[in-house]
Amino acid sequence: RHHHPIAEMLDLPFLPFCAFLGGLGFVCVAFVSAWCQHWRGGFAVDGSAQMFNWHPVLMVTGMVVLYGAAALVYRLPPAWRGPKLPWKVLHGTLALVAFGLAVLGLVAVFRFHNAHGTPNMYSLHSWLGLATVLLFSCQVGAAPAPPHPVPLSPSPSHFPSLQWLAGFSAFLLPWAPAWLRALYKPVHIFFGSIVLMLSVASCISGINEKLFFSLKNGTMEYKLLPAEAVFANTLGLLILLFGVLVLGALARPSWRRPDADSPDSCQVHQLR
Amino acid sequence: RHHHPIAEMLDLPFLPFCAFLGGLGFVCVAFVSAWCQHWRGGFAVDGSAQMFNWHPVLMVTGMVVLYGAAALVYRLPPAWRGPKLPWKVLHGTLALVAFGLAVLGLVAVFRFHNAHGTPNMYSLHSWLGLATVLLFSCQVGAAPAPPHPVPLSPSPSHFPSLQWLAGFSAFLLPWAPAWLRALYKPVHIFFGSIVLMLSVASCISGINEKLFFSLKNGTMEYKLLPAEAVFANTLGLLILLFGVLVLGALARPSWRRPDADSPDSCQVHQLR
Repeated sequence: RHHHPIAEMLDLPFLPFCAFLGGLGFVCVAFVSAWCQHWRGGFAVDGSAQMFNWHPVLMVTGMVVLYGAAALVYRLPPAWRGPKLPWKVLHGTLALVAFGLAVLGLVAVFRFHNAHGTPNMYSLHSWLGLATVLLFSCQVGAAPAPPHPVPLSPSPSHFPSLQWLAGFSAFLLPWAPAWLRALYKPVHIFFGSIVLMLSVASCISGINEKLFFSLKNGTMEYKLLPAEAVFANTLGLLILLFGVLVLGALARPSWRRPDADSPDSCQVHQLR
Repeated sequence: RHHHPIAEMLDLPFLPFCAFLGGLGFVCVAFVSAWCQHWRGGFAVDGSAQMFNWHPVLMVTGMVVLYGAAALVYRLPPAWRGPKLPWKVLHGTLALVAFGLAVLGLVAVFRFHNAHGTPNMYSLHSWLGLATVLLFSCQVGAAPAPPHPVPLSPSPSHFPSLQWLAGFSAFLLPWAPAWLRALYKPVHIFFGSIVLMLSVASCISGINEKLFFSLKNGTMEYKLLPAEAVFANTLGLLILLFGVLVLGALARPSWRRPDADSPDSCQVHQLR
């Protein structure tokens, strides 16, 4: 698909990239867990600061790492062949687990605030983070997933899709026709990328905010850049790198599933 | 280009959208200026907190609003006709002004820190913000802009491009061949979008951080959500909306300039 030997030389295969990205996602989860365990007192479910610590871990794991994995399911070479249904199941399952962890992460911070009489939803981080989860919940609800009673085309991508959150999806789109799917798909893909960007921005503002809260006494002050600050700042940059790599992988033409839901494949695929 | 009357009904013309986006950009600059003028003591160039106030105003104006305007130049319908050169000049000029404002914005915060003995570059906001400006400076240096000595194709988009930062660009790409431009263009577009996302994330973490710094005394505490906090949080969401709308406009197929630099126009354009 390229025009020059140098272009072909730079063509990276997906699987090694994917292995690196998986490792990076694991490192992000390990870093946020280590930060909360080593410097912030570990985990509990009693409304204490140890309960708050579930918030960053669940948000990074759900809204960034699992969410990114869900976004890239259709880029796996095995997903290029055969029926799309199992990959839709995997995409939906990963997204649903990510959403569940995000909801638990919100529960952790609200319970912590309520137990301490701290107001909820005042900082820009909280506004942005809630907007991100709400936008994600719209994505979940409106996933173009119900089965198609009368296939309009023999294309393999018109297989009936997974009906998870069955009632909810069916309520929104009871018998989604092909033209509606073709219309909605680029919207789903665009807002999917936007939710990932907002998640990363929420994580960064949250880490920044937490460090200003935590490192304000004497020699540990954030300004003096103690080890915890370097560690958590690095976590922020790793999360950012993970998000940028996922967006880059989604945008890369040669990693796309070759078949398309619509004959106008250039049109439908170009928003990925 | 669409397949259904509803799809065509939803097709928004670019110019009204562009007028709305311009208004939103103006509102962002007005909000950040009003915040600094009304609640943070106004502006000065003496190393005081009034000098710091230039930082948010210059960053929002340069890295978000003018940067977004530069990104959308080729979407203007007049840019679809005739030679591309004047639009390249406009794109480059807007980007250069944006970059200049960003550098002045950095000068403002470094001078403020130095005048107060505050360390530089400790917060995650500062790491992210500097990474954003550095990535932008790579974009500027590597703009695929030098004139082509031997046009390989009669396509109007092979007109010699603007040589701003002439020496620097010429040093990096003295006689950029067509295949290199075709290879580099999607990279330029992708990292252009990434810089805008990082700018928005930097603004959000910066506003959040500034509010925690400023609103920590008595009845004005951030937690109590005083008028200033609501105003600045709203500014953060407006900046976010501006960024999302620019990215959405870039991704929208029907708003792209129809001609392409390469015969493989679907390939070259799909990263936008």
